[in-house]
Amino acid sequence: MSRIAYVNGRYLPHKRASVHVEDRGFQFADAAYEVIAVRGSALIDEDLHLKRLHRSLGELRIAAPMGDASLKSVFREVLRRNAIVDGALYLQISRGQAPRDFPFPQGVAPTLVVTAQRKRGPLAKQVEEGVGVITLPDIRWRRPDIKSVSLLPNLLAKQQAKEAGAFEAWLVDRDGNVTEGTSSNAWIVTAAGEVVTRQADTSILNGITRLGLIGLLAREGLKLVERPFSVAEVKAAREAFLTSSNNFVLPVVSVDGAAIGNGYPGSVVRRLRQAYEGHVAAQGAAQ
Amino acid sequence: MSRIAYVNGRYLPHKRASVHVEDRGFQFADAAYEVIAVRGSALIDEDLHLKRLHRSLGELRIAAPMGDASLKSVFREVLRRNAIVDGALYLQISRGQAPRDFPFPQGVAPTLVVTAQRKRGPLAKQVEEGVGVITLPDIRWRRPDIKSVSLLPNLLAKQQAKEAGAFEAWLVDRDGNVTEGTSSNAWIVTAAGEVVTRQADTSILNGITRLGLIGLLAREGLKLVERPFSVAEVKAAREAFLTSSNNFVLPVVSVDGAAIGNGYPGSVVRRLRQAYEGHVAAQGAAQ
Repeated sequence: MSRIAYVNGRYLPHKRASVHVEDRGFQFADAAYEVIAVRGSALIDEDLHLKRLHRSLGELRIAAPMGDASLKSVFREVLRRNAIVDGALYLQISRGQAPRDFPFPQGVAPTLVVTAQRKRGPLAKQVEEGVGVITLPDIRWRRPDIKSVSLLPNLLAKQQAKEAGAFEAWLVDRDGNVTEGTSSNAWIVTAAGEVVTRQADTSILNGITRLGLIGLLAREGLKLVERPFSVAEVKAAREAFLTSSNNFVLPVVSVDGAAIGNGYPGSVVRRLRQAYEGHVAAQGAAQ
Repeated sequence: MSRIAYVNGRYLPHKRASVHVEDRGFQFADAAYEVIAVRGSALIDEDLHLKRLHRSLGELRIAAPMGDASLKSVFREVLRRNAIVDGALYLQISRGQAPRDFPFPQGVAPTLVVTAQRKRGPLAKQVEEGVGVITLPDIRWRRPDIKSVSLLPNLLAKQQAKEAGAFEAWLVDRDGNVTEGTSSNAWIVTAAGEVVTRQADTSILNGITRLGLIGLLAREGLKLVERPFSVAEVKAAREAFLTSSNNFVLPVVSVDGAAIGNGYPGSVVRRLRQAYEGHVAAQGAAQ
């Protein structure tokens, strides 16, 4: 079965799915996007993703290409045509196609692209044994809270992590505190057992998995503290982990080559991964 | 006559010039670009643009799609097919098309797009009377010295300038100093007659017009000082101006609504614009 992509009202063979060379997404990174996990044919926390999408579009003053009901229909049709039961949906909305000029063009329709792919996610080994991260300066623009395709610094940092044999790079602000990963939120469990992640201000993307997990913490009897934490705190933490739509909750067992805790996934992250998988499975079952 | 664009080895009608939805230029801003002025069929300071392009590609570790001689042939063919004598050439090189994943893909050919357009440049009135700028915080990523398409903060600032009735936004760093404009370099002439522009470190793009003008200053008997300057210094300056491939040398006569000097283009900027036009005309005549 060949892959199908949605582009501006048409369902096209993936190979022929294209945008114009003067699409502002291509020339200016003038676009927002979302990645939504799919499990048991359900789009996990779809409404939270749509809410965040509208926030990004609002901040960028890009018009929504259609109403949410229509968007949701397109998402389902893309999943159906690609026969995706477990995987991920990708959607990108750019300001549209216009002769190259910095200011917003007038009377231009936004570009909507929706694609889907089968499950990738972390390897069983990564879930069981945890992964390593490196720390790098956060050199991104100052609005990473907007989920834009302005991702060049993110991918350069991810490439550095890969070359260092690490799974992810945790980005560090000018004060020495971790902001987040290149495509995930960063968490630690302190010696006192508090679960700490940075507050969702303009310095990080407010992850949908982050939000989902926050909703589960109280039920697990865990105390959440939203505040910046330093690289030294990561090194001294009892446990650490990352969250993302693709990885859910993934243990982090080393930072810059130094073991965190005893170097193995701890009890808190194991519980939280299980709890989050329950949160996901419930949505898949309800489908 | 219909416009023609070059895309990956093919000369296509502009309307059909497209890139894949999984081109990394569209999904990640993973691309470098150049805009080269064309006058009298000559590509102005083409070799300096190519040198900077190679620097950008090197910093991003994107392979050049072909050698310089071939690139130059493509440029000329695009100008010829579009019958451009006075205008601008746009070229963009992305890391290529690959399934969406942050790290660099292996064995993928870079995408090359080349387009051309007729002359726009500033209006005669703008050259004669000067333009206004506003100042805004520089919220870009920390490597604007790389000419990448990571331009979202630039266009948001340019849009703010436009809505404020200004021609350009001058971006201000955390120390209160001007870095540069959203698509131009920033200059002042001090009360002492020194011509000041920020040094080309990683905080600004080293403009080709900037470099060309620097080469002309000594001949004009003017002293160049490369250093940061504050917004207060702009307000107290005798003259101010901006440089870019599209605008050459353009007088700036107000900042945040306050007149600079007597509010009219001064003698230094007039001389420099003339000198730069001579530099351009010489290349057109040599063609």
